[in-house]
Amino acid sequence: MYHAAMIAKACPPPLRSLALGAAPLLILSALALPLAAAAAPPAAKSPATAGDILAASIPADWQAFPDADLLLLDFDSGRRVVIALAPGFAPVHVDNIRKLVRAGWFDGITINRVQDNYVVQWGDATEKKPLPPGIVSAPPAEYERPATGLDVRRLPYPDSYAAMVGHARGWPVAGDGKGLAWLPHCYGMVGVGRNVAPDTGTGAELYVVNGHGPRHLDRNIATVGRVLSGMEMLSALPRGTEQLGFYKEGEARPAIRSARIAADIPPAERPRFEVMKTGGPAFAAWTKARANRQDVFFNHPAGGVDICNVLPPVRPTPPLTR
Amino acid sequence: MYHAAMIAKACPPPLRSLALGAAPLLILSALALPLAAAAAPPAAKSPATAGDILAASIPADWQAFPDADLLLLDFDSGRRVVIALAPGFAPVHVDNIRKLVRAGWFDGITINRVQDNYVVQWGDATEKKPLPPGIVSAPPAEYERPATGLDVRRLPYPDSYAAMVGHARGWPVAGDGKGLAWLPHCYGMVGVGRNVAPDTGTGAELYVVNGHGPRHLDRNIATVGRVLSGMEMLSALPRGTEQLGFYKEGEARPAIRSARIAADIPPAERPRFEVMKTGGPAFAAWTKARANRQDVFFNHPAGGVDICNVLPPVRPTPPLTR
Repeated sequence: MYHAAMIAKACPPPLRSLALGAAPLLILSALALPLAAAAAPPAAKSPATAGDILAASIPADWQAFPDADLLLLDFDSGRRVVIALAPGFAPVHVDNIRKLVRAGWFDGITINRVQDNYVVQWGDATEKKPLPPGIVSAPPAEYERPATGLDVRRLPYPDSYAAMVGHARGWPVAGDGKGLAWLPHCYGMVGVGRNVAPDTGTGAELYVVNGHGPRHLDRNIATVGRVLSGMEMLSALPRGTEQLGFYKEGEARPAIRSARIAADIPPAERPRFEVMKTGGPAFAAWTKARANRQDVFFNHPAGGVDICNVLPPVRPTPPLTR
Repeated sequence: MYHAAMIAKACPPPLRSLALGAAPLLILSALALPLAAAAAPPAAKSPATAGDILAASIPADWQAFPDADLLLLDFDSGRRVVIALAPGFAPVHVDNIRKLVRAGWFDGITINRVQDNYVVQWGDATEKKPLPPGIVSAPPAEYERPATGLDVRRLPYPDSYAAMVGHARGWPVAGDGKGLAWLPHCYGMVGVGRNVAPDTGTGAELYVVNGHGPRHLDRNIATVGRVLSGMEMLSALPRGTEQLGFYKEGEARPAIRSARIAADIPPAERPRFEVMKTGGPAFAAWTKARANRQDVFFNHPAGGVDICNVLPPVRPTPPLTR
């Protein structure tokens, strides 16, 4: 049998059998954590799996995303997408996005492009909707930032694109090893659509990666966040049939009914999410276990892992009750 | 304006403008190649983009997949998925798959699992359908093969999982640098579901990668092919809501109406696909251009590329008319 704590990508891969005992969530539900994991720690001979480590984690291993950084997109379908914004990496773009949200600019905005193995993109299809006052119309090219102050925990594995990769402040990070760092384009990461330079995008046009990480976009676009919840709705949208995956005239375009920042709604209604502290011991053990799979399914642990396959674990937590 | 030859992942990324002039196909359509590309080669000062190189390729740069290696899955919806099988990497599993197809075993088989950012998987949900005679019930673990004879063209970029990566015979390849090679788990690659060792799967349960390459599965599963056409249908299927993305009882399961090997149908009805010759000069130029994007959109070419972002270009070709 499989360990009860096998989770998401940590869990057994393509199986012939339907007799499975694992939690399937991309986002680990703290509420669903099997209590058995605490009662039955892995035997000394069997190194902990990534799932074991998540199950055995304690509250101090996690930190909450600030309410001001949670972007809630409620679609006409009733589905919600929650995105964590990254003001530490693209402060001007993120500030623009917050202002667009607060001005109601995103309300009624549609998904216009779904290109297979690339991006889902939303914005003003008419390109005529005026931006609200206070938006920085030509933000700086926030494609990189100084690595100084990030205290990146480096992964000891090579990367095909960057001199170094690792984690900082709950985010995946890539760097040039010479003082610059950036958020890599991984599945579920959110960026700012733009035209050719010197345009950097305002934040009014956003996209999320829906396939293998298009890391060649790193350092060429402002990456502003990560989808925490609702990705499986975005990724299953029909691919657009026009060039570059744009929807054809008349094809259904999912519409955002309401975009809000969590900090702007009553505390009891705010969704809350935690990310594993990327500087802590549990996270270090988790990345190591992801690179050296000990789950019963695996015959040959890889001894390495791609940054996009070790995005920090995220979990929803109950709303504040005060 | 953008080059007419910008294609798929070689084309401009998230744009603010809808004024685009590129071909959107994941699989390059030879028939749709803009003639303008031949008439207007890139200026001497502007290095060729990956799209330019595809547009300028000649017939000798391409090779056809053998009809005996093309697996056609026709779904009840009318949609077709075409998979190239890789007998050079997993001959016993591929032979099993051909036998299952020829016995009609896959007809009526359903997709039972769609896990976000992982796999789409099909097989016998009842686990009671008897296998036809002649199937090898316990194939060898065809997870690796000798690199000897493959003549791998190595990529000069590091990989997070393998000692080396490159291409051979129209396929992406990873290797340990000590004589073993295998097909990496990239978006669109097809593998054989199995139970825990010593089971290796028969080929009756198959899956395709629908997210960031789960390369930790390399060397742990028989990888047997690649989706050439129809991926955008598989990738947009609703995610299953049961554990590991399995569909719940009562959720719609897409069914295979008919599975065939192209060689078994009349020549005029056979779909035909070509792959760029991975040992040739056009492919060498193309991989280099993918690692060093010169498209007008890019400010900062990466100087590297992940093996899963340089899967050999594939294109449909007209059926034989004799």
